[in-house]
Amino acid sequence: MIPLKERILRALEEDMGPGDVTTAATVPEDLVGVAFAVTRESCVLSGMEAFRLVFEILDPAVEVSVTYGDGSLLGPGTTLAVLRGPLRSILTGERTALNLVQHLSGIATCTHRMVEAVRGTRCAILDTRKTTPLWRDLEKAAVRHGGGRNHRFGLFDGVLIKDNHIAAAGGLRRAVENARARVSHTLRIEVEVDDLDQLREALAVGVDVILLDNFSLEDIRRAVSLVQGRALLEVSGGVTAQKVRAIAECGVDFISVGALTHSAPAIDIGLDIPAQSAD
Amino acid sequence: MIPLKERILRALEEDMGPGDVTTAATVPEDLVGVAFAVTRESCVLSGMEAFRLVFEILDPAVEVSVTYGDGSLLGPGTTLAVLRGPLRSILTGERTALNLVQHLSGIATCTHRMVEAVRGTRCAILDTRKTTPLWRDLEKAAVRHGGGRNHRFGLFDGVLIKDNHIAAAGGLRRAVENARARVSHTLRIEVEVDDLDQLREALAVGVDVILLDNFSLEDIRRAVSLVQGRALLEVSGGVTAQKVRAIAECGVDFISVGALTHSAPAIDIGLDIPAQSAD
Amino acid sequence: MIPLKERILRALEEDMGPGDVTTAATVPEDLVGVAFAVTRESCVLSGMEAFRLVFEILDPAVEVSVTYGDGSLLGPGTTLAVLRGPLRSILTGERTALNLVQHLSGIATCTHRMVEAVRGTRCAILDTRKTTPLWRDLEKAAVRHGGGRNHRFGLFDGVLIKDNHIAAAGGLRRAVENARARVSHTLRIEVEVDDLDQLREALAVGVDVILLDNFSLEDIRRAVSLVQGRALLEVSGGVTAQKVRAIAECGVDFISVGALTHSAPAIDIGLDIPAQSAD
Amino acid sequence: MIPLKERILRALEEDMGPGDVTTAATVPEDLVGVAFAVTRESCVLSGMEAFRLVFEILDPAVEVSVTYGDGSLLGPGTTLAVLRGPLRSILTGERTALNLVQHLSGIATCTHRMVEAVRGTRCAILDTRKTTPLWRDLEKAAVRHGGGRNHRFGLFDGVLIKDNHIAAAGGLRRAVENARARVSHTLRIEVEVDDLDQLREALAVGVDVILLDNFSLEDIRRAVSLVQGRALLEVSGGVTAQKVRAIAECGVDFISVGALTHSAPAIDIGLDIPAQSAD
Amino acid sequence: MIPLKERILRALEEDMGPGDVTTAATVPEDLVGVAFAVTRESCVLSGMEAFRLVFEILDPAVEVSVTYGDGSLLGPGTTLAVLRGPLRSILTGERTALNLVQHLSGIATCTHRMVEAVRGTRCAILDTRKTTPLWRDLEKAAVRHGGGRNHRFGLFDGVLIKDNHIAAAGGLRRAVENARARVSHTLRIEVEVDDLDQLREALAVGVDVILLDNFSLEDIRRAVSLVQGRALLEVSGGVTAQKVRAIAECGVDFISVGALTHSAPAIDIGLDIPAQSAD
Amino acid sequence: MIPLKERILRALEEDMGPGDVTTAATVPEDLVGVAFAVTRESCVLSGMEAFRLVFEILDPAVEVSVTYGDGSLLGPGTTLAVLRGPLRSILTGERTALNLVQHLSGIATCTHRMVEAVRGTRCAILDTRKTTPLWRDLEKAAVRHGGGRNHRFGLFDGVLIKDNHIAAAGGLRRAVENARARVSHTLRIEVEVDDLDQLREALAVGVDVILLDNFSLEDIRRAVSLVQGRALLEVSGGVTAQKVRAIAECGVDFISVGALTHSAPAIDIGLDIPAQSAD
Repeated sequence: MIPLKERILRALEEDMGPGDVTTAATVPEDLVGVAFAVTRESCVLSGMEAFRLVFEILDPAVEVSVTYGDGSLLGPGTTLAVLRGPLRSILTGERTALNLVQHLSGIATCTHRMVEAVRGTRCAILDTRKTTPLWRDLEKAAVRHGGGRNHRFGLFDGVLIKDNHIAAAGGLRRAVENARARVSHTLRIEVEVDDLDQLREALAVGVDVILLDNFSLEDIRRAVSLVQGRALLEVSGGVTAQKVRAIAECGVDFISVGALTHSAPAIDIGLDIPAQSAD
Repeated sequence: MIPLKERILRALEEDMGPGDVTTAATVPEDLVGVAFAVTRESCVLSGMEAFRLVFEILDPAVEVSVTYGDGSLLGPGTTLAVLRGPLRSILTGERTALNLVQHLSGIATCTHRMVEAVRGTRCAILDTRKTTPLWRDLEKAAVRHGGGRNHRFGLFDGVLIKDNHIAAAGGLRRAVENARARVSHTLRIEVEVDDLDQLREALAVGVDVILLDNFSLEDIRRAVSLVQGRALLEVSGGVTAQKVRAIAECGVDFISVGALTHSAPAIDIGLDIPAQSAD
Repeated sequence: MIPLKERILRALEEDMGPGDVTTAATVPEDLVGVAFAVTRESCVLSGMEAFRLVFEILDPAVEVSVTYGDGSLLGPGTTLAVLRGPLRSILTGERTALNLVQHLSGIATCTHRMVEAVRGTRCAILDTRKTTPLWRDLEKAAVRHGGGRNHRFGLFDGVLIKDNHIAAAGGLRRAVENARARVSHTLRIEVEVDDLDQLREALAVGVDVILLDNFSLEDIRRAVSLVQGRALLEVSGGVTAQKVRAIAECGVDFISVGALTHSAPAIDIGLDIPAQSAD
Repeated sequence: MIPLKERILRALEEDMGPGDVTTAATVPEDLVGVAFAVTRESCVLSGMEAFRLVFEILDPAVEVSVTYGDGSLLGPGTTLAVLRGPLRSILTGERTALNLVQHLSGIATCTHRMVEAVRGTRCAILDTRKTTPLWRDLEKAAVRHGGGRNHRFGLFDGVLIKDNHIAAAGGLRRAVENARARVSHTLRIEVEVDDLDQLREALAVGVDVILLDNFSLEDIRRAVSLVQGRALLEVSGGVTAQKVRAIAECGVDFISVGALTHSAPAIDIGLDIPAQSAD
Repeated sequence: MIPLKERILRALEEDMGPGDVTTAATVPEDLVGVAFAVTRESCVLSGMEAFRLVFEILDPAVEVSVTYGDGSLLGPGTTLAVLRGPLRSILTGERTALNLVQHLSGIATCTHRMVEAVRGTRCAILDTRKTTPLWRDLEKAAVRHGGGRNHRFGLFDGVLIKDNHIAAAGGLRRAVENARARVSHTLRIEVEVDDLDQLREALAVGVDVILLDNFSLEDIRRAVSLVQGRALLEVSGGVTAQKVRAIAECGVDFISVGALTHSAPAIDIGLDIPAQSAD
Repeated sequence: MIPLKERILRALEEDMGPGDVTTAATVPEDLVGVAFAVTRESCVLSGMEAFRLVFEILDPAVEVSVTYGDGSLLGPGTTLAVLRGPLRSILTGERTALNLVQHLSGIATCTHRMVEAVRGTRCAILDTRKTTPLWRDLEKAAVRHGGGRNHRFGLFDGVLIKDNHIAAAGGLRRAVENARARVSHTLRIEVEVDDLDQLREALAVGVDVILLDNFSLEDIRRAVSLVQGRALLEVSGGVTAQKVRAIAECGVDFISVGALTHSAPAIDIGLDIPAQSAD
């Protein structure tokens, strides 16, 4: 993973290239001012560390006071950060900083809605690996800021045996035994099943977690009855805000939702710079 | 900008870390197979070069045949690429490859809808700098694949004087004159205006392009009458698929839409691997 | 993690700097030859992919034929690889290639001895995180080549709660509950205990794995009796080739040994280049 | 050579990946504490700059007070550094910091023993290029901390003509003349010889340094008599702590020992964190 | 573009490799002193930020007081910067710092002469893309310090259609129309013409800027008459200090000169370190 | 040192940024053609490997046939390379490739003149460390292509004790003794002297090489007489093409010339693309 500071440096380079020609030509080098980052709609905030780093990396003379931390639930018109310093740097960094916090707050806000929908059940909302390449760490943090929990980070910190793995291994039992024998003992074994027969086979082999892929509500309920706590249960596939509570109420442990990270619309957040007095 | 190959390498690292433990434990090292990338919904395709590169970088033994190029309009259930090679590598690269093409096809598809909405007018749909950091080049290409045109790439290849620049420079005239005197003669001067008075001032100073920010339809029409071709006209601010045609019919040259890149939902595309025969 | 190719490129740079002055001055640029990599002592081989990459990166004109793969048990005087190509490149890459394979074969060989010592028991030999910074992946592979198994790769793919974590969390129960609530459900919970009382507490809380740190043989046996299969058991601390079998025979699941990676002496492997005929 | 700070950053990434899940889950974010790095056995210390940098890079809020500098001869149980700051960061950085200082102190300690063995003679102990790739600078510094001297750093700051170079050049005389004509006048010419005949030839051509490779004690003595100070003399090949003094007493200038860097066992150094008071 | 700090770090590495052996061996580690950077000839200064960064990166304990800023016109023997701090670091960084400022001041000085030659005309002196790879930003800044203006930075922030583009596009008109349709509306269209006929064609198509390549003085005058302000005019090709004023007096807007950046001789600037008192 | 391929990649990025907008808009993607790199003046060629790499890195479909190798003495109008392939890539890479070969051929040509001036004497022309940061390796190769020899590459592969080192060490004798005791035995010791008294002191201490800094011709002759072959002699300081032969005839071994690398004007080399037939 590229260190966050380097990613932000590279994001600034992407936008600035050899220089912000408009600002360099129109804003005096020594002009100092203040700017306010303000929400234009309700949201759960996420990405404030990245927001702050944009200016720290671009120009340490810009002082960023963060008013609300990640995870804050804000109404429209709320000032989330105040910037003071060279106006050139504030204007040059504005877009990169906002692009990050708008996207991440979109994810946190979308997650928050799902989490609220299942409130009171024992079910947790999980993210997936369907994230924007190079930004998974921040997107998974945004899911936590929205009240969700994280599934495995990547291919290395969790075993999730899917149908293709099962076919390639020559059966579910063989796949699970191979995994048990070869992966670190620090990892659980999770298996994805497509129907109740596969679920029974997984239970018989003794896996730790079972992922019910595209199960009907009815089958989810049967699965919960069958398993009786002998394995953790996760549901995924076509989960929407409308359907999520009914699934949770079946008694599963986790619902994982790809849309949290791949389809959450950005939150509108702007940077307001009061007119500079002309003395 | 980080070279595309390096970004994809790093995206793979992000997902794989020290290794895909599930695949390594369950799929035999020498097992070779075929896989099909298939749309689950209608879309305009984008990102096929990145898709191909994921596997080229991960394992050159995976052969990728791209069936449809960027910009293709596809129905659901269409096979867009066929992969042949070591199943381990196909399974390990799957998520990173799909994450890219799902996101970029989302942008192309969203752009396509806007472009269709203004078809027959002289108005072009433009993107903005509201892109995902580190992926602007691919996202701007996706806009082109959807039929849109690109605004400036970043802060360096276009002059766009906004209200903050004007305030800092001590007035619109001064801002424009400073820009003319200092930026390369290869760049046009564009100024953002908030009302018709500012528009008149911009015209008087002789700018090349005028950006009408959050203008009502009525004011857009007045602006077109006032300008009479002496400058190019661009509209931005709260443009939706519903409103875009009416704006275009006012006779402006460009409409720029941030949502193309910051809020387009991902297109559902999957990788189907037929069951391996067990001989 | 730096990609292996880049690490090897940087290792070559470290040795070559601006150039191999001796070889450039004394070996004709177009002189082609053959060289043999030969063991000078018995060993289990490891690092052949890195060996091959050194020459592929330095000069693709050097053809490397690997005679024995990783994990091969070789006697002294065995030719493990044959190189053909420009002698300049062979001589320049020699040291970097040998440094890697000598070190990694040292680890595989040391592991092999431990694994042989516990043969016939149900106990596996594990490595630790006491590896050479920047080379952990290859060193953990060397442990596998020697017949050992890998503990977690790093701080991210396994939960191992040690005394400091317990103290900071305010007790073992609280530490375990916090871990359960916050880490991905794909990870097991392992706790390090210093005595049988702590072991009982860990069992009561219901952890997945228990690490017995510096236990006497007698206490290890008691621990096995107490646990009765309700958790996996790992032993660590001062394990030597002399003591390892007795520990394994107590009935524990794993013994982890830091010395495999931090103190294994290098295996002597040389590169023999037959005298070039002078025609 | 990768800058040290970047290597340490990458080493931390290698261990941490996307995060230290155990510490994040069990140790409160704001818990501050103290920790002591303590030797578990006698050693000559090396690597304290790297030790310090690990924490500076990971979290500048961790204050590292180094009690003993590189080259200090310490008994077991000695506190070599005191750390104060966020316990999370101290726990997360512990392994990387210790891995470096344990390995480098192993080299310094091993060198120290060799240097003590030849004390009183005019002979210096040299290292070789048989180092761990990417860490040669620190390993060569560790050799100096142990009282040894450094041979050339790499292939670029010294001319060492071996048998293969001689064969390729068409004889020792030609090899030396070519080197004289082509390499910078700032470098001496050293030639490796296998027997006394070659030694005489090297003397006749007028080289600056002669390396006696795998000479018997008797032949070393003859070589010293033959050379009579007309060239510097270095001995290498199978040098052990037992044999080193006898070789030194023959009157040679240098003895170079590969095992200093490729086979020195790590020194046991631990991090002790006193129990945190629970107020 | 590699960030300036990284380029300077890499430039230092290029010179230092594994270390400045002379300074390490002869200058005590704790010796502190002062040094003066002094011009040995008249010049316009450029590169002081890079000069300062060399020492900031190498050793923050070296304090650099810059006496004259970029763009200052200095006589010989002028002290442009004073350094105070560890003498080892000052000596080690000297050459890299001077190499940069000598080269960049050469460019600024050369530009200054050209700019002086056209003083009083309306013509600006422009640079080109004939710069030293990896240092274009600093070289273009040096041109500004000498009083020149910058042409486009690279291939991305200006459209310059040359004869090869015209031939490939199938004629000047087609080339211009294609550019108009495809490049961002923020860029002007410039066309290079070889004679007056092409100039007339370019005017007819309506380009923004016309580059007169290798025109005689007489033809330049005719071009100015023909164009009558309908496009900006730039002259290039074999421009020398002798010819530049006559060209400017023809009434063109810009003269671009490759030699500013590719052939300006370095300015002689030295570092004087007063003898250290021996107490 | 950044690997050459990466430097060239970065140089291309510097020029191309997000893309060559002119070429993309005017040259058809599939248009294939031929281009000739041609000298516009006499020169000694250097940089052809870098020239070739520019196109290999940019687009492997461009085939580069190098007609003349580095070190070739060419008249004006000579075709040094032929390129065949996609015209887009040829046009995009042209400037970066030419910038490198024009600069390096400038150095080779300048060196060649100096070398010719001393032909017949025993004196070699040396370069210095006054090179363009990040390009020293290619510039030093250009010096060799022009017939010169290289001084040390950097601060690490040669000891050159200057007046500041002498002052800091507490005298010439102390400086030399410290160097002897601490630097690798593979390096010679060179000392810079300002007058004949210092020369005598250096001889008395027994250094290997003496650098006569800014000596008059008369003093150079005296130095040669005094030294009588007991040390190598190098002259530097204000050496011009006019003075160089007289210095060489004094009988010194080396003359080092900073202007070879810091002030050699670029050679004019162009890329000619014949008009494409329009079928």
